[in-house]
Amino acid sequence: MENEIKKLLEDVKNGGVSVDDALLKLKAQPFEDLGYAKVDFHRKTRQGTPEIIYGESKTPEQIIGIINSMLKNNQKRILITRLSEEKAELIKKEFDLEYFSDARIGIIGGISEEGAGKIVVATGGTSDIPVAEEAVLTAQFLGNKVTRLYDVGVAGLHRLLSSLDEIMDARVIIAVAGMEGALASVIGGLSDCPVIAVPTSVGYGSSFEGLSALLSMLNSCASGVSVVNIDNGFGAGYIANMINKE
Amino acid sequence: MENEIKKLLEDVKNGGVSVDDALLKLKAQPFEDLGYAKVDFHRKTRQGTPEIIYGESKTPEQIIGIINSMLKNNQKRILITRLSEEKAELIKKEFDLEYFSDARIGIIGGISEEGAGKIVVATGGTSDIPVAEEAVLTAQFLGNKVTRLYDVGVAGLHRLLSSLDEIMDARVIIAVAGMEGALASVIGGLSDCPVIAVPTSVGYGSSFEGLSALLSMLNSCASGVSVVNIDNGFGAGYIANMINKE
Amino acid sequence: MENEIKKLLEDVKNGGVSVDDALLKLKAQPFEDLGYAKVDFHRKTRQGTPEIIYGESKTPEQIIGIINSMLKNNQKRILITRLSEEKAELIKKEFDLEYFSDARIGIIGGISEEGAGKIVVATGGTSDIPVAEEAVLTAQFLGNKVTRLYDVGVAGLHRLLSSLDEIMDARVIIAVAGMEGALASVIGGLSDCPVIAVPTSVGYGSSFEGLSALLSMLNSCASGVSVVNIDNGFGAGYIANMINKE
Amino acid sequence: MENEIKKLLEDVKNGGVSVDDALLKLKAQPFEDLGYAKVDFHRKTRQGTPEIIYGESKTPEQIIGIINSMLKNNQKRILITRLSEEKAELIKKEFDLEYFSDARIGIIGGISEEGAGKIVVATGGTSDIPVAEEAVLTAQFLGNKVTRLYDVGVAGLHRLLSSLDEIMDARVIIAVAGMEGALASVIGGLSDCPVIAVPTSVGYGSSFEGLSALLSMLNSCASGVSVVNIDNGFGAGYIANMINKE
Amino acid sequence: MENEIKKLLEDVKNGGVSVDDALLKLKAQPFEDLGYAKVDFHRKTRQGTPEIIYGESKTPEQIIGIINSMLKNNQKRILITRLSEEKAELIKKEFDLEYFSDARIGIIGGISEEGAGKIVVATGGTSDIPVAEEAVLTAQFLGNKVTRLYDVGVAGLHRLLSSLDEIMDARVIIAVAGMEGALASVIGGLSDCPVIAVPTSVGYGSSFEGLSALLSMLNSCASGVSVVNIDNGFGAGYIANMINKE
Amino acid sequence: MENEIKKLLEDVKNGGVSVDDALLKLKAQPFEDLGYAKVDFHRKTRQGTPEIIYGESKTPEQIIGIINSMLKNNQKRILITRLSEEKAELIKKEFDLEYFSDARIGIIGGISEEGAGKIVVATGGTSDIPVAEEAVLTAQFLGNKVTRLYDVGVAGLHRLLSSLDEIMDARVIIAVAGMEGALASVIGGLSDCPVIAVPTSVGYGSSFEGLSALLSMLNSCASGVSVVNIDNGFGAGYIANMINKE
Amino acid sequence: MENEIKKLLEDVKNGGVSVDDALLKLKAQPFEDLGYAKVDFHRKTRQGTPEIIYGESKTPEQIIGIINSMLKNNQKRILITRLSEEKAELIKKEFDLEYFSDARIGIIGGISEEGAGKIVVATGGTSDIPVAEEAVLTAQFLGNKVTRLYDVGVAGLHRLLSSLDEIMDARVIIAVAGMEGALASVIGGLSDCPVIAVPTSVGYGSSFEGLSALLSMLNSCASGVSVVNIDNGFGAGYIANMINKE
Amino acid sequence: MENEIKKLLEDVKNGGVSVDDALLKLKAQPFEDLGYAKVDFHRKTRQGTPEIIYGESKTPEQIIGIINSMLKNNQKRILITRLSEEKAELIKKEFDLEYFSDARIGIIGGISEEGAGKIVVATGGTSDIPVAEEAVLTAQFLGNKVTRLYDVGVAGLHRLLSSLDEIMDARVIIAVAGMEGALASVIGGLSDCPVIAVPTSVGYGSSFEGLSALLSMLNSCASGVSVVNIDNGFGAGYIANMINKE
Repeated sequence: MENEIKKLLEDVKNGGVSVDDALLKLKAQPFEDLGYAKVDFHRKTRQGTPEIIYGESKTPEQIIGIINSMLKNNQKRILITRLSEEKAELIKKEFDLEYFSDARIGIIGGISEEGAGKIVVATGGTSDIPVAEEAVLTAQFLGNKVTRLYDVGVAGLHRLLSSLDEIMDARVIIAVAGMEGALASVIGGLSDCPVIAVPTSVGYGSSFEGLSALLSMLNSCASGVSVVNIDNGFGAGYIANMINKE
Repeated sequence: MENEIKKLLEDVKNGGVSVDDALLKLKAQPFEDLGYAKVDFHRKTRQGTPEIIYGESKTPEQIIGIINSMLKNNQKRILITRLSEEKAELIKKEFDLEYFSDARIGIIGGISEEGAGKIVVATGGTSDIPVAEEAVLTAQFLGNKVTRLYDVGVAGLHRLLSSLDEIMDARVIIAVAGMEGALASVIGGLSDCPVIAVPTSVGYGSSFEGLSALLSMLNSCASGVSVVNIDNGFGAGYIANMINKE
Repeated sequence: MENEIKKLLEDVKNGGVSVDDALLKLKAQPFEDLGYAKVDFHRKTRQGTPEIIYGESKTPEQIIGIINSMLKNNQKRILITRLSEEKAELIKKEFDLEYFSDARIGIIGGISEEGAGKIVVATGGTSDIPVAEEAVLTAQFLGNKVTRLYDVGVAGLHRLLSSLDEIMDARVIIAVAGMEGALASVIGGLSDCPVIAVPTSVGYGSSFEGLSALLSMLNSCASGVSVVNIDNGFGAGYIANMINKE
Repeated sequence: MENEIKKLLEDVKNGGVSVDDALLKLKAQPFEDLGYAKVDFHRKTRQGTPEIIYGESKTPEQIIGIINSMLKNNQKRILITRLSEEKAELIKKEFDLEYFSDARIGIIGGISEEGAGKIVVATGGTSDIPVAEEAVLTAQFLGNKVTRLYDVGVAGLHRLLSSLDEIMDARVIIAVAGMEGALASVIGGLSDCPVIAVPTSVGYGSSFEGLSALLSMLNSCASGVSVVNIDNGFGAGYIANMINKE
Repeated sequence: MENEIKKLLEDVKNGGVSVDDALLKLKAQPFEDLGYAKVDFHRKTRQGTPEIIYGESKTPEQIIGIINSMLKNNQKRILITRLSEEKAELIKKEFDLEYFSDARIGIIGGISEEGAGKIVVATGGTSDIPVAEEAVLTAQFLGNKVTRLYDVGVAGLHRLLSSLDEIMDARVIIAVAGMEGALASVIGGLSDCPVIAVPTSVGYGSSFEGLSALLSMLNSCASGVSVVNIDNGFGAGYIANMINKE
Repeated sequence: MENEIKKLLEDVKNGGVSVDDALLKLKAQPFEDLGYAKVDFHRKTRQGTPEIIYGESKTPEQIIGIINSMLKNNQKRILITRLSEEKAELIKKEFDLEYFSDARIGIIGGISEEGAGKIVVATGGTSDIPVAEEAVLTAQFLGNKVTRLYDVGVAGLHRLLSSLDEIMDARVIIAVAGMEGALASVIGGLSDCPVIAVPTSVGYGSSFEGLSALLSMLNSCASGVSVVNIDNGFGAGYIANMINKE
Repeated sequence: MENEIKKLLEDVKNGGVSVDDALLKLKAQPFEDLGYAKVDFHRKTRQGTPEIIYGESKTPEQIIGIINSMLKNNQKRILITRLSEEKAELIKKEFDLEYFSDARIGIIGGISEEGAGKIVVATGGTSDIPVAEEAVLTAQFLGNKVTRLYDVGVAGLHRLLSSLDEIMDARVIIAVAGMEGALASVIGGLSDCPVIAVPTSVGYGSSFEGLSALLSMLNSCASGVSVVNIDNGFGAGYIANMINKE
Repeated sequence: MENEIKKLLEDVKNGGVSVDDALLKLKAQPFEDLGYAKVDFHRKTRQGTPEIIYGESKTPEQIIGIINSMLKNNQKRILITRLSEEKAELIKKEFDLEYFSDARIGIIGGISEEGAGKIVVATGGTSDIPVAEEAVLTAQFLGNKVTRLYDVGVAGLHRLLSSLDEIMDARVIIAVAGMEGALASVIGGLSDCPVIAVPTSVGYGSSFEGLSALLSMLNSCASGVSVVNIDNGFGAGYIANMINKE
């Protein structure tokens, strides 16, 4: 950014750019303003860079508007999270969208599991799978190889121990669990890589919609565990990609 | 109790007891009223049955008063919990009291590890030991054999697994842990006996004085785990005795 | 388990088992992996041992898959908890399932109230009955005799006192109550056996979905009371069996 | 008040009072403003009516200032609550103050247990006594007869039942208890008079400084129970007087 | 009760009653056990005494069973709280029930506003009226005269002040308010009688379903205020009757 | 008010007003009592002053009654907040009502963006817009000019910085944001005018229905930020008007 | 800021400023970096503008360092909040500091109550005065006239009503109250200006260190009330100045 | 581990190891049991690998015991966290310990800032520095280069923006902030690397000992942010090392 400013100032000096134009450029908005949303292009917008839309509280019309704005700006691959089946149906009429109902994710432009990635996504139980799939698809969309270890909760430790190889071998592990969230600590104790813990709202009574798992994970006695919001599979997949990529 | 009433009524019929005396007996108080405390003798008071005093918010004078009342009623063995070192010193001047500073427990009449007991007390870390010792001494005072498994937290799973024999062999296990409290779930998954989980107030930040461990243990995904109050080592030892005895 | 390892090592020494085969066996998974679930057979799998499925967040198809895997492994008797009426209807088409709508429990292979069990299940009010029934059926399925004491809340103490005989006589008592949860303390004070307290989400306003009863039970002034999660009738029944059996 | 206004208007009409004087009177402050406090005399100030000062966060100088203002206005009897021993010592140098260290209450002008009062104050345990004494002294200061029932917690039900006569006979009962607060419900179920429940901060762990007892009492399954703030013995005594007096 | 026991013992002595019959009588249940409910008759059951059923979590069949049991025992007047319109319709087919949809209350045997009662029921806003009506009807059913002061919240103080006469004149005041619950404090400061505060779940955001009003009322700076559970209009009406009656 | 009282007293003195009439006037209610609501006219009721109705928990009939009462009293312009589409349809049949479905606001008598107002309303995301629109319409209805800055959340700081001019120039800023609520702090740090922060219930998991944003805003490290209730767009618009007007 | 950038660019064009110098200026830090603190001068730094230091968690050495940095930059008047007596003593040795122990505020350069300000600061009780004084001194330091209304809590409404003139006349009111925090609502209903509510941590039991007052104030039924953090007198004074100034 | 087992089995086959010895080895404890602690050596124990001791709840004697056990096992470099000044003094007498009082960290064997590390540690304010220093020292001890950006809170955005270069250039950023915790979101929006957020207990009132910052960070609207426990500087430094190393 500094370089761009320097270049601009030199252009002003050279007379190549007028003062008013320079001023305008310095203030120029690196996003398109759709009124209800400011579509963001401030990452280096080389062709094909994946973009992400949070679908939860947007109308299908708004999502379609944002997709159009993105495609117009050469974003060929788009991930839409928290997308309900109903909205997905409407969007499919306009674009070539692949929909994953478990993870409530829609993808335009396909997955590209290209890289050297070694991300493991583990769940405590069967009911944590939707959140885990959100993490898996996000990581895959961003170009990582992912291994699934589902239903390896700590109440049946041998199930987890039988996958020790995958755990030992990972660059990042995403531990998805509700109820008491002990999975993160146990995995954290077995591995030497960063563990991203995702509490889920699975459970009842004093699980308090995921609060129990959240607190448990924040207090993990194993070093190397950090935590994202309850049910935030997308966030975990996104961070895992950041760690795995460089 | 039914029998006693029947006996009493027959005595009335036989004239052995007057109506007024019977009435009095039916209302008789099975405890001594010291004003500030009603010392309880309603358990069958055969000689030597152990008695327990909760020392926390009682003055040394009150505790001494209660001990005297108990001794007078033939209670030879007495356990005092939550007893500070200062109070213990004062009480020692009056009675033959053994004091355990870690567990903050005082005992009159000694421990009698008589029985067929197979109680295991495990802790997640070093800092959980005082609470664990309260459980151990309570269980021992009530006549159980106890095995200690300290510092076997889930972040170093091999430490716990190396004690699998003791865990497999127990009649009851007391799992004492702060922070994320995962120990209870992991032990619950490894054993086939009842696990009594004791959350401790060990930890900081979002452990919220033991709340995190408490919620975690209540939401254990392992069957067979029940929970007592934060730091309630005494309660766990007392229940373990009840389970182990019959 | 130790013996199995010893046997294996001796087989290796004798040449009866190759090194690679032994290695494989040591890592062998004692469960069937259905992808969405790892069906667990690590308890000694003698014919007919009862198995349990948590039905809440599983699809009927998943439950049917798990049942088939169990039957294939010679599990003749199966308990399914948190089973909705709709799912039960679908499962009934495939298997000989008995459904209890109050307790939301389905059973394959029948109840076998065989044993010497003396478990009492008490409730504070009429509305706590569904949770209590979950406990009753679980305990009966696991082979215990159960006595029901319903609607004996502490606001009408004489109702509870009129059942003193059953309370005095029990090996374990399960106290199920919402609102202020005082039932556990009062029963705990009247009996000499372990009391498993189950807070229920019955109530309104500041009962906060069972939190009030939960805290009340954790703070019971009666010794001998431990607590399970809100509405966790199954857990209470399971623990009561553990205590009652040996 | 209406009458006073009418009288004033008639005086204006008659010329007995000027318009400006009337305006002044209508705005006149029925209290003395000491800067840091506005001492209140808006209750009909007949000679000797008892007055109350909340001593907690006032300096001894401020309390002395308020007492002087009261005495000047013919308040002969004064109750000071939440008064520390240190402050009491300083105040004693100026006035004839009786100090009760348990209840942290100071009284000028003595107690006058005059009336037909039948107030019962019960506690669950020994540690609830200070809060109970605050209630007792407040009620006595306001002219009520009070019966103490201390250490009658529900874990030893026979201790409570042996005082059934007093409970049956009361006009109001104040139930003071920490931990699980079940005392209020049990007493509420045994009596036909209003029960004022006072949760105390006695307990540890998940009692959360009285929150557990507070919630428990608010959710009492017994009709007739209302609740005041944690440790608010004064408030309970004050309300009991209101109910008992008329 | 003491007299009854004395009488019984004398009958035993006289031979008028056999020992076994006496034993039976002493243990006799003063309620009818319907299985799902123990209908309570332990109050002196003179003809026509009003009885109360909590309708929330009972089926219409259970309610009808309880009504029949009561009528059989000569309870002519019955109040059913938390009764939905649907259940009321079904019950109306069997009995002569009057239904109040605002308060969700059903009454058999009519209201009898007989007494010297001077109960005021005030609400902060229009939305608090349903809870207030539950209190009004309960108090009227139990034989009290009630004055309604609705929508007199503290944000428009003159509305409240214009009803000062009613407030000054009451024997008990029930203050029903959601949001910040300040009504109880202001009324408490204006009156000399007991104020029963009922927090309501009216509000949004940080009112947290009535928690804000509840805490506010518990911390009232006015003496004389006690609190019942959120939305507990019935409880307030019941206590107001207890205070007003004697 | 003082002047009115003085005038009244002089009239009494002059005989222009009788004592009884004066008394009546002093007690006269400055509102109309509709039974379910007391419609308030205590603000100086000059013709055309806008009035506001909180529509949430009122029936359409009640709202229509209140509107009629207002129109009768010469209130020509009325704002109705928290008005559902269904209720709006019914009210439209009676009055000339304009309805804004996003903000759930109905307006009679139109908006009058008359003044010197410079209020900025900013949102963190697209989903915060409904709450923001409630604030915008309220402020406009009360006669202020409003600038909208939507979707300028802190995760894309350049979007916010590109609107620095509007932020620098405002007399008041309303910052509407859910999730972590950081918008208020960042805007507070950039501007020199009062910032009214409105937390929204947008988010999931540990946002706890807006609690996270609420706490975040209350703890803003920027001076000049005050906070209203979660989702309380109306309150923010109303206060902004108060600040902007004088 | 835009103008400065424009000016800079024109200077570059004119050759008056080199490209590198311009770049430097654009990046120049408008603060001094002391290592432990970055002292901020980005407000227009005309001579004598007051500056503020949050003293709580800074060492005396750090505060002295910051003061020196400020004085060097021509800040003649400095306000230090949350300053303990001990730190103040040390600072006094270096600078001409006036210390207010109640408000825990230190001031260099004096107060200048210059303006047209009409700010009212009201407290519910005597114990809220320290927080109120923090607000008063902050507002006075920033050049506002302030009226104190102390101990006017809602339990004695006449004390508040006797100051109606001041309340009616204010441009802003700061309402400081603990316990149930009703003061803000009542004042909000009586006045037509913005009310800034400051909850205080005064109280005990279920006041939960100010939480009760905070929630109460956020849920105020009076329009025009916004809230700052618990005990944040400084923040309230700062905002009041912002509102009052323009 | 697999290889070790394979080797062992081959040794058994070859007769190099007896069956019983093999069994013993398979169960051998890779740690030293000190009674109060099990010192862990299960990471590959090559000479000089750094080891970490959590000092908080251990006595100086226990810490010295653990250090001795580590040194004996060839751990030359040791980090001790949460070490009070008093304990440090005692330990210094035995070992060559460097103590950092701000971070409460003790180090044996020195720091080795060897690597390619580019870790940035930023704080919102001056008071967050102790927690930040714990992170800095941990990361440096583990061999990373660290850049400090202190006091760059979002209320003065230009301070943060002036360090954009460091932020853009980092491999991992640790964002340490109390109060509203907005720093993590703003940094997360400016950078493309993983951000580890550390809430601190700095603040007062509704910051609730760090809860406000914790919730804020968990709800960050910026992707790439994960969170550790309140004040857990060590954990953040440890994870940052994991991410930075490979």
